[in-house]
Amino acid sequence: MRSHAIVLLSGGLDSTTAAAVAKSEGCELYALTIDYNQRHRVELEAARRVAEWLEVCRHVVIPLNLRLFGGSALTDELAVPKDVAVERIGQSIPNTYVPARNTIFLSLALAFAETVCADRIYIGISDVDYSGYPDCRPEFLDAFARLARLATKSGVEAGTQISVVAPLMKLRKSEIIRLGLSLGVDYGMTHTCYDPTEEGKSCGLCESCRLRLAAFREAGLEDPLRYESGHITAIPVKTRE
Amino acid sequence: MRSHAIVLLSGGLDSTTAAAVAKSEGCELYALTIDYNQRHRVELEAARRVAEWLEVCRHVVIPLNLRLFGGSALTDELAVPKDVAVERIGQSIPNTYVPARNTIFLSLALAFAETVCADRIYIGISDVDYSGYPDCRPEFLDAFARLARLATKSGVEAGTQISVVAPLMKLRKSEIIRLGLSLGVDYGMTHTCYDPTEEGKSCGLCESCRLRLAAFREAGLEDPLRYESGHITAIPVKTRE
Repeated sequence: MRSHAIVLLSGGLDSTTAAAVAKSEGCELYALTIDYNQRHRVELEAARRVAEWLEVCRHVVIPLNLRLFGGSALTDELAVPKDVAVERIGQSIPNTYVPARNTIFLSLALAFAETVCADRIYIGISDVDYSGYPDCRPEFLDAFARLARLATKSGVEAGTQISVVAPLMKLRKSEIIRLGLSLGVDYGMTHTCYDPTEEGKSCGLCESCRLRLAAFREAGLEDPLRYESGHITAIPVKTRE
Repeated sequence: MRSHAIVLLSGGLDSTTAAAVAKSEGCELYALTIDYNQRHRVELEAARRVAEWLEVCRHVVIPLNLRLFGGSALTDELAVPKDVAVERIGQSIPNTYVPARNTIFLSLALAFAETVCADRIYIGISDVDYSGYPDCRPEFLDAFARLARLATKSGVEAGTQISVVAPLMKLRKSEIIRLGLSLGVDYGMTHTCYDPTEEGKSCGLCESCRLRLAAFREAGLEDPLRYESGHITAIPVKTRE
């Protein structure tokens, strides 16, 4: 029997690549997307496209309104910062940090894993080209894996360990892109921008766009996404030659 | 400044008592109730009554539809077991176990704590008179506390530790009731039954009712709740003399 795996799928570049790795490892996939009332809701459409491409057994999109807590530019009416140079991203924790987000997402993945008897959870985090979020570090992940063993019926009764797999942890974003391409990912399916236009175009200015664009440039590749071209020309991170 | 605390408030006997302890310790309270589409929805009303009695600063009721995963009698159409003698409860994990429930609830409490700068989370779990759930044990809680330190902005930047307080951990349910009464809790506000009637009356037969009724009896006290009397007389656990 093929191993069952939960893939945490936001519809972004990283989670799509991590899910592609899970698929390439022969797992039967169950995708989990959290609709946390993020302002970049176009991300959910991207998640649906990717789940279809991955041919997952089941895709659960679970609404969880983190706006009820507030405290992040991704869910509040705070402005998304647009003026951080790419080399300074990650030096402090930005206001796009959503309190305890990965802890919540992994907890939900753990519940899903128990329900469908999955023995692993794939998450597309990296501690290299990351945005300075505390819950993207290997020590966080180790602590979660330890918790998972103690928290679950499967861990206690059957001794089955649900492991957390972060295949991108040590990869730069440009390496993530190359890995995804080698697995057949079309990054035109994905969405990255924290502050897209109403038509779903990426701004090219938020930290998330800047990291993505810089990574494509570093990989010597062209990003298939459409950007608000008026903005792009005004920022130091150039998208295309 | 008074310490801010999150209280995980289900509206049941345990969480109400834990919250009363938090209040007695002088904390400014923020209550968090998770509407996980439980079949005993009358519990949410109880949570509102208790939050009002506690005079909390804010009560967030966050909807989170765990039915999307399935796998528990509390959220699925599985039958709630009604024939387990009270002395056998806890010997194996029952089908009322909701996968990863406390992990999810504590993760949400962690997010709320970061948002309102709370330095502690109160949870009303006990490993004495419990139902055999793995996520009610001290080792689970220790693992979560460790995770919380690594997962949060406050933990990383300010070195502020958000602690998890389980004031009932070593108490029998009868001791919990005595503690609550000494703090002024009216247990008529609370709700315990997993399978209440449409009018909100408790069944008296599910494991949760049985544990509650046995505890009141052990404490030599009368439970102020109303039960389906037809059932009560038919079960070995007697409620009142």
